[in-house]
Amino acid sequence: MTVTAPRGFRAAGAAAGIKTDGSPDLALVVNDGPADVAAGVFTSNRVCAAPVLWSRQAVADGALRAVVLNSGGANACTGEEGLADSAATADAVAGLLGAASHDVAVCSTGLIGERLPMGRLLTGVEAAFAGLSADGGADAARAIMTTDTCPKTAVFAGEGWSIGAMAKGAGMLAPALATMLVVITTDAVITAGQADTALRAATEVSLNRLDSDGCQSTNDTVLLLSSGASGVRLGTREFAAALTAVCLDLGRRLLGDAEGSSHDIEILVRGAASEADALEVGRAIARSNLFKCAVFGNDPNWGRVLATVGTTRAVFEPAELDVSFNGVTVCRGGAIGEDRSLVDLRPRRACVVVDLHAGEEQAAIWTNDLTYGYVRENAEYSS
Amino acid sequence: MTVTAPRGFRAAGAAAGIKTDGSPDLALVVNDGPADVAAGVFTSNRVCAAPVLWSRQAVADGALRAVVLNSGGANACTGEEGLADSAATADAVAGLLGAASHDVAVCSTGLIGERLPMGRLLTGVEAAFAGLSADGGADAARAIMTTDTCPKTAVFAGEGWSIGAMAKGAGMLAPALATMLVVITTDAVITAGQADTALRAATEVSLNRLDSDGCQSTNDTVLLLSSGASGVRLGTREFAAALTAVCLDLGRRLLGDAEGSSHDIEILVRGAASEADALEVGRAIARSNLFKCAVFGNDPNWGRVLATVGTTRAVFEPAELDVSFNGVTVCRGGAIGEDRSLVDLRPRRACVVVDLHAGEEQAAIWTNDLTYGYVRENAEYSS
Repeated sequence: MTVTAPRGFRAAGAAAGIKTDGSPDLALVVNDGPADVAAGVFTSNRVCAAPVLWSRQAVADGALRAVVLNSGGANACTGEEGLADSAATADAVAGLLGAASHDVAVCSTGLIGERLPMGRLLTGVEAAFAGLSADGGADAARAIMTTDTCPKTAVFAGEGWSIGAMAKGAGMLAPALATMLVVITTDAVITAGQADTALRAATEVSLNRLDSDGCQSTNDTVLLLSSGASGVRLGTREFAAALTAVCLDLGRRLLGDAEGSSHDIEILVRGAASEADALEVGRAIARSNLFKCAVFGNDPNWGRVLATVGTTRAVFEPAELDVSFNGVTVCRGGAIGEDRSLVDLRPRRACVVVDLHAGEEQAAIWTNDLTYGYVRENAEYSS
Repeated sequence: MTVTAPRGFRAAGAAAGIKTDGSPDLALVVNDGPADVAAGVFTSNRVCAAPVLWSRQAVADGALRAVVLNSGGANACTGEEGLADSAATADAVAGLLGAASHDVAVCSTGLIGERLPMGRLLTGVEAAFAGLSADGGADAARAIMTTDTCPKTAVFAGEGWSIGAMAKGAGMLAPALATMLVVITTDAVITAGQADTALRAATEVSLNRLDSDGCQSTNDTVLLLSSGASGVRLGTREFAAALTAVCLDLGRRLLGDAEGSSHDIEILVRGAASEADALEVGRAIARSNLFKCAVFGNDPNWGRVLATVGTTRAVFEPAELDVSFNGVTVCRGGAIGEDRSLVDLRPRRACVVVDLHAGEEQAAIWTNDLTYGYVRENAEYSS
């Protein structure tokens, strides 16, 4: 199902030999229409990969016929040659489809700083094209995995219409969508403007609030394609709500499979003077290695939370801060609260609530703990 | 020697029983004059500990007679009672010295969020006072250790005058001096204004450019005391140069003993349009967990360096970035440079140079790698 759940889409996965272990590494998603509406959001990293440069231009006119994705190589920091490789990949798909090159988006993930093996990749494109099918979504989702331990997919079933999605990402998840490739399809009838508005709104409160390890990738791309094949016309608000639900679902799956992690941590900052304050505080806590190590050690270390809040510019008084871990208010009024031994941090899901007592706004950031496994994967795996 | 190297100072260390293992945990440094000039810099964390609040006020008049320091408890996030505890500690020292309470600075380090055992602490103050001696500097340096594996001291021998220093710190080393307690003494004749100017200048380019783990402490304090006992009058510039050398020496020692680390990493950013740009880029790299894990794995992963540079606001063009690891330019012009296998990252000291090719300015930041040991210490040790 996944990206082929909505009508009007075909997909395929193939093993092109870009990965040396022979596992699937090339995915193709084709929109058969009748509409070819599309929108995209990309990493805000100024050092961005060739496929990001290519796809940002390709989707600028609000239309795409296909997305081709490869794992096994990020095609980042590869100069002019890398950009030519992304263009050649789009050209190949466009030629097979009878479309224009700028109707094809390209996504890559894997090692930074190495050229892609273009001969094998283009042969893989042909194989994937030959294998396109209306139930190829699962194969496509598997072909974009890198250090992911499982494919990530989500669907939303509306009345007579649906959304399907696939994602990869298991590290470098950070604000502005780090090392995340997401393709979302729908058969709802929406305009390019609606698609763009809905995608920005949905990612802002979901994928853009994941901060697994504070590192921002060069390749992040989230694409939305609409075939309009359901014939169901939707308002922007209704569509955006469904899209947000799908993005939140994908976000949880990305977090749950983050490299080496043993906890999924929700940091809810409330009582903030503004949403921006809540987000600043939440992101700062999500990036505190000491806090993340403490959660790994099942230690409700509110002192490390307070020490991090103190580094922000948010409105608060130190003597008014409350912090709870999994419902136990271990810090009250900036000092010792309930007995920390009442906190059980053994479950994978952990919830930390910080009340700034400075206003009515709130926001949540999702992160992971810092573990031996994280260090192992990132000391031994080059990306 | 350490803080008792300059004339006019006595020091002592004592085991007050604040630490449960019976190791030394209380240090006292007394300035016997003739002058009592002092200056201090403190954490910029808005959640700062009671002793920081106390000592900031105590040193505001440019004079101190003594510094009392304890390990085994940070007295942070302890509310009004904590502040009263710091005041009582200063009162006790002042009473023994026949000085005013505001002539005594107080420093604490250890667990956040717990009250100090004041009875034992005050008994320890009496013991330390009784043990004060002109060669007590080493004992004092040992008494302020927490997760430090060795005491950190430094001296500078001028012509007829000297500087002595002791420091503790093995984690939470971050801009604005995280979890670092430093006491520096001198017998040079300087004014309070000179002391303040020299201390700010020296720490700005040394201790303030350490960023071991990106976390900023609630307790950091660097104090400078001058007895003037040498009779040697110095210009601000000459004194500041010597003080900077001492602070750089201490910084290297702090970095070399950072929790669980296996590499000391110098990140030199050059070719920057401004020093601020160079510092922003250096600090961003120093906080990239992916970069830090790569160095732990002896991997000269320039892609992770570029991905981090891309998140900054510094002036640069992605296609002009050069990155070298230990002298090998593995990235040239934003793409693949020399063979990465030429880089030997096995020695503890690593040097990463990033050339932004955007100007003439440069700055260095010092950090550590991210290791299993770091995770272990910070998952198992509450601070």
